[in-house]
Amino acid sequence: MENTLLHITYDGTYYSGFQIQDNAPTIQDAIEKALGTIYKQPVRITGAGRTDAGVHARDQRASFKAPFHIPGKKLPNALNSILPPDIVITGAEKVPEAFHARYDAKRKIYSYTIDRAAFPQVLKRLYSWHMPGQLDLDLMEKAASLFEGTHDFKAFQASGSGVTDTVRTLFRVELDYRSHEQLLVITFEGSGFLYRMVRLITGSLVRAGAGRIGLEELRGALKGEDVSAVGPTSPAAGLCLENIYYDLKK
Amino acid sequence: MENTLLHITYDGTYYSGFQIQDNAPTIQDAIEKALGTIYKQPVRITGAGRTDAGVHARDQRASFKAPFHIPGKKLPNALNSILPPDIVITGAEKVPEAFHARYDAKRKIYSYTIDRAAFPQVLKRLYSWHMPGQLDLDLMEKAASLFEGTHDFKAFQASGSGVTDTVRTLFRVELDYRSHEQLLVITFEGSGFLYRMVRLITGSLVRAGAGRIGLEELRGALKGEDVSAVGPTSPAAGLCLENIYYDLKK
Repeated sequence: MENTLLHITYDGTYYSGFQIQDNAPTIQDAIEKALGTIYKQPVRITGAGRTDAGVHARDQRASFKAPFHIPGKKLPNALNSILPPDIVITGAEKVPEAFHARYDAKRKIYSYTIDRAAFPQVLKRLYSWHMPGQLDLDLMEKAASLFEGTHDFKAFQASGSGVTDTVRTLFRVELDYRSHEQLLVITFEGSGFLYRMVRLITGSLVRAGAGRIGLEELRGALKGEDVSAVGPTSPAAGLCLENIYYDLKK
Repeated sequence: MENTLLHITYDGTYYSGFQIQDNAPTIQDAIEKALGTIYKQPVRITGAGRTDAGVHARDQRASFKAPFHIPGKKLPNALNSILPPDIVITGAEKVPEAFHARYDAKRKIYSYTIDRAAFPQVLKRLYSWHMPGQLDLDLMEKAASLFEGTHDFKAFQASGSGVTDTVRTLFRVELDYRSHEQLLVITFEGSGFLYRMVRLITGSLVRAGAGRIGLEELRGALKGEDVSAVGPTSPAAGLCLENIYYDLKK
């Protein structure tokens, strides 16, 4: 069997997340159905990460095994002609048979976008969290830097994932205020992420920026001593899976 | 009666345009209903420009007369609490009783966004025209400059508007290629615009950029000599009414 890695971008607004589930539209289901049409047999994909309902992706990855590999742009074009317009395959590459889209992922990048305009920017509303009002960006940057490095992020996960090892490394938690667009974009680059970790950290950063929690409380939350500084979970619409890195020899 | 001018931003994706019509959702209808709820009587608004189905606005204006003026942010906040999330009122100002949102408009700015990525950028799909492939931007800029100035734009209008004076002045037709976003944004600033004029000019500019029509043919079209260089009408999704200027004394 040939192993193929897909590059996928999607608008998650109208989906119940990436992972397949009963009686709800998911990205995985749409792609598996399209692959089934092309390969004329059931095809199961393995996503690199499970994005939640309403979360977007600029370069999600998923691999699948099939009897033959379709080279070049042929497979993306064929899939895109079947898929709805809010899911687009931007590439497909042959990978070693042992390759696993989730386990082999070395680093992931997420972005979280906050709309800072006084009134919601309607053309950004599906892709941002509208949060007007005073935010101390310097303080938020200090708070963000607390999360960088290797920590037990146990307090910064939502229940229900079943993950037991909650130590992760964040290489970068970076704020970028785009004044022209009135958007605050927070970039998270890490070895891996717990369930809802980015949205929970973002909620905490915003609370810190609004002066409602202090850096000491955040430090305590990271040590698991005081979870009152955790969250709230920021809305799904602001979150976008940007990129996933593998050690693939070219 | 007090005359009030609203600042309106909307995502036109799910509307049959700005102007009210039977049995179809329009921006005007949604705003008039919300105003009717607030003023407890029917209120009619006059839009500065009629955007087509699927066309967006960052700062559309509309005026209305009502028995009293509601100052400050109170009216926008009240309207926004009633309106759907894809229509947002960002301001309301008192204007002279003789003020007319359409007739008094001195200049309007539209933007047209072209997605130049090889595959459609899904998070931009509702706000752009996906047009990959070779485009000669230098040539497009030369073509754009032909439209600047005062011309009879008769050939660059769709039928059905009933307008007889087809002379307009374009102060600016400017291309901005945002390489990081892979978006080509064309800005049109003019004294006024004919029905579908921006979308027809954009279609012609893209054809010129693709080398399928020459500058001479465009000049001929502007003189009304040869209309084969006109259009096609580019898709509504890429068009956004950016701004409208009045001579309002503050």
